[in-house]
Amino acid sequence: MIKAGIIGSTGYAGQQLVWFLYRHPEVKIKFLSSHSYVGTSYPQSYGNYAKFMKDICIDIKEAEDRMPEIDVLFIALPHGKSFDLVKKALHLGIKVIDLGADFRIKDSSVYAHWYNLKHKSVDLLDKSFYGLPELYRKDIKNANLVANPGCYPTASILALAPLLKFNLIETSSIIIDAKSGVSGAGRSSNLSTLYGECNESIKAYNIATHRHTPEIEQALSTLCEKDITLSFTPHLVPMNRGILATCYANLIKDISTEEIYDLYHIFYENEYFVRVIDGLPETRWVKGSNLCDIGLRVDERTKKVVVVSAIDNLIKGAAGQAIQNMNILFGLKESQGLELLAMAP
Amino acid sequence: MIKAGIIGSTGYAGQQLVWFLYRHPEVKIKFLSSHSYVGTSYPQSYGNYAKFMKDICIDIKEAEDRMPEIDVLFIALPHGKSFDLVKKALHLGIKVIDLGADFRIKDSSVYAHWYNLKHKSVDLLDKSFYGLPELYRKDIKNANLVANPGCYPTASILALAPLLKFNLIETSSIIIDAKSGVSGAGRSSNLSTLYGECNESIKAYNIATHRHTPEIEQALSTLCEKDITLSFTPHLVPMNRGILATCYANLIKDISTEEIYDLYHIFYENEYFVRVIDGLPETRWVKGSNLCDIGLRVDERTKKVVVVSAIDNLIKGAAGQAIQNMNILFGLKESQGLELLAMAP
Amino acid sequence: MIKAGIIGSTGYAGQQLVWFLYRHPEVKIKFLSSHSYVGTSYPQSYGNYAKFMKDICIDIKEAEDRMPEIDVLFIALPHGKSFDLVKKALHLGIKVIDLGADFRIKDSSVYAHWYNLKHKSVDLLDKSFYGLPELYRKDIKNANLVANPGCYPTASILALAPLLKFNLIETSSIIIDAKSGVSGAGRSSNLSTLYGECNESIKAYNIATHRHTPEIEQALSTLCEKDITLSFTPHLVPMNRGILATCYANLIKDISTEEIYDLYHIFYENEYFVRVIDGLPETRWVKGSNLCDIGLRVDERTKKVVVVSAIDNLIKGAAGQAIQNMNILFGLKESQGLELLAMAP
Amino acid sequence: MIKAGIIGSTGYAGQQLVWFLYRHPEVKIKFLSSHSYVGTSYPQSYGNYAKFMKDICIDIKEAEDRMPEIDVLFIALPHGKSFDLVKKALHLGIKVIDLGADFRIKDSSVYAHWYNLKHKSVDLLDKSFYGLPELYRKDIKNANLVANPGCYPTASILALAPLLKFNLIETSSIIIDAKSGVSGAGRSSNLSTLYGECNESIKAYNIATHRHTPEIEQALSTLCEKDITLSFTPHLVPMNRGILATCYANLIKDISTEEIYDLYHIFYENEYFVRVIDGLPETRWVKGSNLCDIGLRVDERTKKVVVVSAIDNLIKGAAGQAIQNMNILFGLKESQGLELLAMAP
Repeated sequence: MIKAGIIGSTGYAGQQLVWFLYRHPEVKIKFLSSHSYVGTSYPQSYGNYAKFMKDICIDIKEAEDRMPEIDVLFIALPHGKSFDLVKKALHLGIKVIDLGADFRIKDSSVYAHWYNLKHKSVDLLDKSFYGLPELYRKDIKNANLVANPGCYPTASILALAPLLKFNLIETSSIIIDAKSGVSGAGRSSNLSTLYGECNESIKAYNIATHRHTPEIEQALSTLCEKDITLSFTPHLVPMNRGILATCYANLIKDISTEEIYDLYHIFYENEYFVRVIDGLPETRWVKGSNLCDIGLRVDERTKKVVVVSAIDNLIKGAAGQAIQNMNILFGLKESQGLELLAMAP
Repeated sequence: MIKAGIIGSTGYAGQQLVWFLYRHPEVKIKFLSSHSYVGTSYPQSYGNYAKFMKDICIDIKEAEDRMPEIDVLFIALPHGKSFDLVKKALHLGIKVIDLGADFRIKDSSVYAHWYNLKHKSVDLLDKSFYGLPELYRKDIKNANLVANPGCYPTASILALAPLLKFNLIETSSIIIDAKSGVSGAGRSSNLSTLYGECNESIKAYNIATHRHTPEIEQALSTLCEKDITLSFTPHLVPMNRGILATCYANLIKDISTEEIYDLYHIFYENEYFVRVIDGLPETRWVKGSNLCDIGLRVDERTKKVVVVSAIDNLIKGAAGQAIQNMNILFGLKESQGLELLAMAP
Repeated sequence: MIKAGIIGSTGYAGQQLVWFLYRHPEVKIKFLSSHSYVGTSYPQSYGNYAKFMKDICIDIKEAEDRMPEIDVLFIALPHGKSFDLVKKALHLGIKVIDLGADFRIKDSSVYAHWYNLKHKSVDLLDKSFYGLPELYRKDIKNANLVANPGCYPTASILALAPLLKFNLIETSSIIIDAKSGVSGAGRSSNLSTLYGECNESIKAYNIATHRHTPEIEQALSTLCEKDITLSFTPHLVPMNRGILATCYANLIKDISTEEIYDLYHIFYENEYFVRVIDGLPETRWVKGSNLCDIGLRVDERTKKVVVVSAIDNLIKGAAGQAIQNMNILFGLKESQGLELLAMAP
Repeated sequence: MIKAGIIGSTGYAGQQLVWFLYRHPEVKIKFLSSHSYVGTSYPQSYGNYAKFMKDICIDIKEAEDRMPEIDVLFIALPHGKSFDLVKKALHLGIKVIDLGADFRIKDSSVYAHWYNLKHKSVDLLDKSFYGLPELYRKDIKNANLVANPGCYPTASILALAPLLKFNLIETSSIIIDAKSGVSGAGRSSNLSTLYGECNESIKAYNIATHRHTPEIEQALSTLCEKDITLSFTPHLVPMNRGILATCYANLIKDISTEEIYDLYHIFYENEYFVRVIDGLPETRWVKGSNLCDIGLRVDERTKKVVVVSAIDNLIKGAAGQAIQNMNILFGLKESQGLELLAMAP
């Protein structure tokens, strides 16, 4: 049994982690830490666990003290909060899977620029691995520190990777128009995510400034060995879960929808969690699962390709992918504990 | 392995059955039958199964021909459609779990009155058992034909049973005000369940005439050995899933909220799927699970008790309960394949 | 032109007031006061007014200083906050319409009990009039201080008044099961009204303890000249607006649905804002309007009557009714500025 | 008084027309025609009109017979259905405002290609005018036949027009990623717009093939006197109303966000219904109004501009714009009867 600790367990991503770890046959949860709910039982925060889970949320100090009990530490904190924790855990020989943003960007000046914060563990950046298994499975296998990807980057990179791998597009032409459910904004009280403010409305936000942009660029640049700058626009959609990323790029060759599909099928041939589908993805078909659905169309009139991907932002975009990484780290079957399909409707 | 066939597999309840049976470790699905999607692959109707399920929907004729392959037949059809199927399956020695209404009402004249239809298999009524395991587990164990309860009745009966069992209320005073998500209305195209007609609105419907009324009355009458007539009002709520039943009754003794809670805890002591909770149920905490949450309050000023229950209408109110019944019929652990908690948010 | 000031203009009810006053042909808004947004322009809080309204929110101190400029003061504050304001305004000869709860309950000990607060202006209770025009139009006409009814009471009282007026029911048997959209919980940031906490779920809350209970009882008791104690249960429904009140009572005579309808038609014969409809009310048909729809059914089996009413909680349940009261106070046509029908879908 | 007839009055756009015409001070509705609800009263289809409107829906034959009674005919039918009606009405000297697509595309071969239908009134194409007042006000003034724009085109053209007018962008680089509420799909029963199929999900559809594409291209090509081919992708969002169009293009000069804003302010300086706002549009702030909100950002890293527009698809995207056109045709104030702001929340 893998003994796990979770820091930041009462946020939406943290809770989703607890949900999967609780039912994972090879995992035992040793502690749940929370900032806002210290001393309360976990079901007081999330009634779905009533009767089934009795854990009391501990504070971060106690979590640090109890690190020796665990094999793996999951951290689901806002950026800038995990530097010391990670250091301490690694020092104790504990594997760390960080769902936050601090170890995703390799270049600390890029991090400083986008996050408006000086990186406090630059030495660890080299030792961290970007936890997108479909692209970096081999590296992850031996990692001690996994930087779990952001939700938008997961959807965007999986959608675009084959186009870049097979050199089909003008790399300067990429536009990602992404749409997310409200859970992506987290579980803290603030006016903009009140029911009455989000329901029955859609908006774009953080145009040209969203912090997931350099993360997507870094992964795609690595893939095609060329610096990529792209345009990323997130939107907020009135639904609990789900991300749909609609990605646009100019084709540099004459190629049909079917031919590109063939290449996508090859690229994702052995991937359990990626479904290349003939139709167009809808978030409802992946909601509650760790799957990523991808569909695409060539727009022959404009010589563009449009690739659409759908994920559950809290699962493949956060907690599910973290478990997937854990499975890799500990030599388990990659899909273990993650084999649920979406529940419809 | 239990070999199962499903009739009516492309409705919402039918699909939920497929969902649970597909992942049940002791079950093998032998065929899926559908009225509207014959000849198409199951994922064409429900994209969540893409890549994972390849079954082609067969018609009811073929399903009948293939009955000899199966151990258990699940039927999820509108009322009046299952008489012949049930007869044929039973004749072949197949266990039948009917999610429809045809075998729930013991008195065929009551059935005829509420369903406006003459019952065509009156002889089987005696041999059918009402599949609410928390009350009738022993009978179900040896049944060949299980009449799976309706969604509203499941929530209502579980909420009210202890009050009647412990003789706490005036039996003529019961009022059930129930609220259901839209999936309860099924997956057929009709104006009243269009998105634009249901979203951002709530309504009551079928006041004093809903067909689930005699079903609730029958179960509660049996329980307290007294004819019960009650008032039942269903409502349609803009959400996909969930039923909340708010039940009112006049207390006939001076008893506190805490004392009634004690009796509920005793009544449901060993029930895996019933959670008697201190707070008030919310459908989100049971959505996606086979659980029923129950909370209650005495209104001392009016000498009434208010009991609130919450279930997922498609699971504990339909498919999950059907699997629970199957587990009982085949001697499996009752919760097998049904141990999921609600996924929040 | 009636010169109006609004205190608490940035809450949902306050904003709805501004919305109607802004387009009312006989009103000029003189100031908007806000607790949280002092010094910002109104459209910064509510983008719907961009380009059309330039008012800057002032604080309550400045609002008091500017009282001499106005003829009528609307107050939309939490209970316990308006005592001094009301006193000051009345002293200046300004008509006051208080959307809060402080002057609704005539008996200060009842107020103290339910609101857990000592009433600080007991002397004004006699001079305040309950602003439900359909029942108290004559009193309101000459009032200086109007206590605008709560949202649940408006829906409940209008639903039940004819039953009591015509002496059709057992007065001790009344049960009100009410369902409200989330805007009823106000616009302050708190966890329980986050999108992710309310969406796709329904719950009951404050069973037997909701503060609108004594308000409903007071109005109905006055009407039938008999002390009424009733059971009231509110629910939270995932939609922005709307209240549906499903009211139950035992009939004391043998009377049909049609006969009761006749009495309702008589009772509300000349009421512009009440529609007695043959079908059952749905909140979507009144959303955005000042209308109250009422439908009813006799449940012959249980000798009960079920009356359902629907209003828009922010309009007939708050701001619209306040304008209706203002129209009465100033001798305008009662429906002026309030003649919008619901916009569907 | 302008006497108006409406064909197709029971669809969502038709009903929105009725809603505005009913309260328009200069209009009298003479007849409402419907395909599906002939012989029923209008409030039977739309309960919001109960008590206030008594019109009985007539069939199209009767509508034709009663054309002599009217001054203006509004047609809200699917494409291909209005050819004969338009001809007949024009022949009688009646002004026609067609909310359908048949007279929007000037080139009948383009129409035939995208709509897969031969145009049956090619001679009238020259005499029809595209009813986007902000661009073609002068032409509309003298028109007899107004082709009211589609919903997506209205949002898209208004967003992009200034960029083209001021020659700021590479015309081959335009991408429009548009998101619509479900009412855009109409009020006919079909599986894909059932509540359970749309709620809690987002999808793209008709990529590279949506019929609004040539309509947008035609308007923008006219504007910049250059053939424009662009990429348009519509999405379905779980909300009743609203369109958000996120438009991308490559800048051909070095220009800042502020400078482009200045040009937009100039371009739309005198437009009542267009608000160029500093923030980013949200559909909730225009819902229920005839307004179009526009915001924009330069993405300096990629030399792209992102312009976002928001409209209510049924109002500025259909019925409201039709009324606006009627006002122009009949010499009324353009905003008459259309001055409502969005009602929030």
